[in-house]
Amino acid sequence: MKRLMNAVDTLLDESLDGLAAAHADILELGAERKFVRRKVLTPGKVALISGGGAGHEPLHAGFVGAGMLDAACPGQVFTSPTPDQMVAAIEAVDTGAGCLLIVKNYEGDVMNFEMAGELAVADGRTVETVVTNDDVAVPKSTWSTGRRGVAGTLVVEKIVGAAAEQLAPLEALRDLGREVNERTRSFGVALTPCTVPAAGKPTFTLAPDEMEVGVGIHGEPGRRRSKLASADAIADEMLGAILDDLAAPAGSQCLLLVNGFGGTPLMELYLMVNAARRILAGRGMTATRYLTGSLVTSLDMAGCSITVTALDERLTRLWDAPVKTAALSW
Amino acid sequence: MKRLMNAVDTLLDESLDGLAAAHADILELGAERKFVRRKVLTPGKVALISGGGAGHEPLHAGFVGAGMLDAACPGQVFTSPTPDQMVAAIEAVDTGAGCLLIVKNYEGDVMNFEMAGELAVADGRTVETVVTNDDVAVPKSTWSTGRRGVAGTLVVEKIVGAAAEQLAPLEALRDLGREVNERTRSFGVALTPCTVPAAGKPTFTLAPDEMEVGVGIHGEPGRRRSKLASADAIADEMLGAILDDLAAPAGSQCLLLVNGFGGTPLMELYLMVNAARRILAGRGMTATRYLTGSLVTSLDMAGCSITVTALDERLTRLWDAPVKTAALSW
Repeated sequence: MKRLMNAVDTLLDESLDGLAAAHADILELGAERKFVRRKVLTPGKVALISGGGAGHEPLHAGFVGAGMLDAACPGQVFTSPTPDQMVAAIEAVDTGAGCLLIVKNYEGDVMNFEMAGELAVADGRTVETVVTNDDVAVPKSTWSTGRRGVAGTLVVEKIVGAAAEQLAPLEALRDLGREVNERTRSFGVALTPCTVPAAGKPTFTLAPDEMEVGVGIHGEPGRRRSKLASADAIADEMLGAILDDLAAPAGSQCLLLVNGFGGTPLMELYLMVNAARRILAGRGMTATRYLTGSLVTSLDMAGCSITVTALDERLTRLWDAPVKTAALSW
Repeated sequence: MKRLMNAVDTLLDESLDGLAAAHADILELGAERKFVRRKVLTPGKVALISGGGAGHEPLHAGFVGAGMLDAACPGQVFTSPTPDQMVAAIEAVDTGAGCLLIVKNYEGDVMNFEMAGELAVADGRTVETVVTNDDVAVPKSTWSTGRRGVAGTLVVEKIVGAAAEQLAPLEALRDLGREVNERTRSFGVALTPCTVPAAGKPTFTLAPDEMEVGVGIHGEPGRRRSKLASADAIADEMLGAILDDLAAPAGSQCLLLVNGFGGTPLMELYLMVNAARRILAGRGMTATRYLTGSLVTSLDMAGCSITVTALDERLTRLWDAPVKTAALSW
């Protein structure tokens, strides 16, 4: 394992300190680095809070800022943050309009956010939760009961974040988050494994001519292992699974998110965009919004995921609304 | 070599088609994909044109748009674009106020842009050139006479792009570009080699415990090969070389750009930001602006470069000016 680091134990802390220094206009760290929070809060706005294990950067801390999250709790690499971190984040950013927790569907994350939410409610706060489970690759996984939450989570965070900025109430935001999740499907393929720093060796092995079809963002197994195929064939299988499950009517407009896992050149991601938009067109759908980049990553894993969200006019307007975070800005 | 592609011969074209589809609001392709150009030109504004071999994405096409470039010419991977491409780009985006060519210091790029400039001048156009050579790692290289132009090129493109938007005249933009280049220094370290798709095997080899100190963005040799060191030690050597050469007075403010080469997780880049800002502070300098990401890449190479630009009030204002491109937006 080759890493730019000083020690496994301090990797996350040092990285968070760098993030906070580089984006001091947008965010700041909570005490003991329990959370990353927006520098300036809007009283009366519902607080959006997410979090999860590190190793998926820029998710989630890179999405803290105007138009997206109010706080993000970083766990150690591929490890859920603790309820204590989440409670501290809630206390820091709840201005009285309530908190919406956006949680990827992994057992540790769901359990800890549930516990934190209960503690906050016991403390007199109002808390709702949206659990994302957009990954259609496998019906359940080593780390999740039911489908995994993957790159579609950022779509939920962006769209709900825009509505929160317009001061929508908590229940409406919860319902919007669930609607966006229901309109969103993802599928990932790995060409190489990732290496968790504390483990020091790859999470799985792939032969030089193999890929993992349907991989999770922690390197969890997918549907099958197969010979590396052409980009067109890979995109066909990914979008076939996504669109069969999404079952959007012909003529639908959608957001196409092609997401790199960390070790894949941008050149290849745009090639996948090109393959994907042709397949979408062949199924009678039009990509009217695009997002391309390594945004929900798996450390140094090579490969990508494709996410499709069926849009309507309202969701499109919310997607287009201004955002200013470390990782997304328009 | 594992790549998301259909065929080596069509990789670049398909990637450009994906880029153009995803950012149709900002840019469009020229005929035969000779260049990527801004969708809407500003009459009376000097046209900024850059280009170079592919494999460094998002450089340069990802920086086409309001506040940065008017056009970028993509060559094949690590191969200069042709004068023919550059002439076509000049003809497409010159609105009569002249063209500034921003060229990284590699022999092929310099020769081809020079030829294109001469052809344009013979055709009655006004053309000036800025050659970037910010890499302090080696005094000359396999691909360059003199220092290489690397990630500092994007700083030149951003700052000159902002001044061009304010309708500064051609000579002033040329002088500004040269000034920014003179105020900018870079240094790169590779932990793994990159693999050019047409070659199918790594451009060089590194033992599991080795790094290439001072590597170029095509995997060219650096100063030396050594055992992988801690992030702090690596940052010390990089910034030592940068700051000794830059010789900015104590108390200087600077832009700190930590750039990933394509295969390095963002988490590690922010850790390097943290290391770098402490070292800067120890030398009496303050990083007042930051940019962090994989922006001037070397395909799938792991590692990073650090770039420091000595700022003044004017350069800071120009850095802060709005930009809207595929890869940078604020």
